[in-house]
Amino acid sequence: MILYCFGESGNAYKAALAMELAGCRWSPRFVDFFNGETRSPAYRKLNVMGEVPVLVDGDLTLSQSGAILLHVAERTGRFGGASEAERREVMRWILFDNHKLSGQAGALRFVMNFLAPEKRNAEVISYLHGRVQAALGILEAGLDGRDWLAGGAGPTIADFAACSYLFYPEPFGFDRQARPRTDAWLARIERLPGWKHPYHLMPGNPSDRA
Amino acid sequence: MILYCFGESGNAYKAALAMELAGCRWSPRFVDFFNGETRSPAYRKLNVMGEVPVLVDGDLTLSQSGAILLHVAERTGRFGGASEAERREVMRWILFDNHKLSGQAGALRFVMNFLAPEKRNAEVISYLHGRVQAALGILEAGLDGRDWLAGGAGPTIADFAACSYLFYPEPFGFDRQARPRTDAWLARIERLPGWKHPYHLMPGNPSDRA
Repeated sequence: MILYCFGESGNAYKAALAMELAGCRWSPRFVDFFNGETRSPAYRKLNVMGEVPVLVDGDLTLSQSGAILLHVAERTGRFGGASEAERREVMRWILFDNHKLSGQAGALRFVMNFLAPEKRNAEVISYLHGRVQAALGILEAGLDGRDWLAGGAGPTIADFAACSYLFYPEPFGFDRQARPRTDAWLARIERLPGWKHPYHLMPGNPSDRA
Repeated sequence: MILYCFGESGNAYKAALAMELAGCRWSPRFVDFFNGETRSPAYRKLNVMGEVPVLVDGDLTLSQSGAILLHVAERTGRFGGASEAERREVMRWILFDNHKLSGQAGALRFVMNFLAPEKRNAEVISYLHGRVQAALGILEAGLDGRDWLAGGAGPTIADFAACSYLFYPEPFGFDRQARPRTDAWLARIERLPGWKHPYHLMPGNPSDRA
């Protein structure tokens, strides 16, 4: 399996982490996002949505991290949830993550760290900061009495989705110490056999552009 | 089936429209979002994510419009996609919609129309406007050579997700005439037997607060 990805992409990390922890054989294909590759006609032909990640698995080409996570879970029989109820919770948290957590945290991290300094707008940062804090509060509430987001005995692809941006060092208003349940949950993920930090799992990181 | 909803919620409309077109028997339960009901402890007990819609179907309580759409498709055998490939496309477009289309359009429509005028920030509106236009461009590209988003012979829950905010009259930078494929696709949806406008399908609309 080949994953189109780059180190800074939390959305790509979700897919890479799930494949790595499920023991898949996969290779990264570096996408030069910061030089505009995802805007190129060739990339848009691969993925009309113009996003990373894209998974190529034999004849199948699949984008959207959530769809890739479901494919990896189905293909490997791992991390998809142990019951119908748990699988519903997996879907709910993947969707929540896409919309409210990674969707906003990824945008805020980009604006605060990767956008050209003269384009960083304090009002936009303040707006996104409020959205990210609200989502982090819901994540913390969702972990009340649960070790894993979908409520089962082990991790699922919902955990791999929601954790993704929270491992990055670039600031976007996430203070791990201020969110004790989230902190303990991230520590549980870090202890899973085979866990790797995004900058160790995928090619490319900010020091390449320093 | 009971759907916790209110007329202005495009996310609730996705679920309501799918149930209506699938011929489900369902009743709306009005949520007084504009007076803070979704922030109340009772509502957070119903849905830790604090969002509309929530579906109650017998013993099942389910939030997240995408998860509800999948449940309705499974329960009724309608609109879920006719093949494995089509079902993958359904997932991809529901996820894209949540993250990039409805996720941003819903936020922009809220800021431009429902937020107190003194809180409407031109920089935030400009930022969200750019995000919404990019997503609308991808929707238009995704409809190239397709009548329906998932690429099959008929509509799916992916269409009901992605169309939802595009039927509302409040401005958020969507010009139907400027997006000819999107315009034709919305007209196809409007012609589906049983289609109703969000303000005719769910209780509550802006004139209630005028």
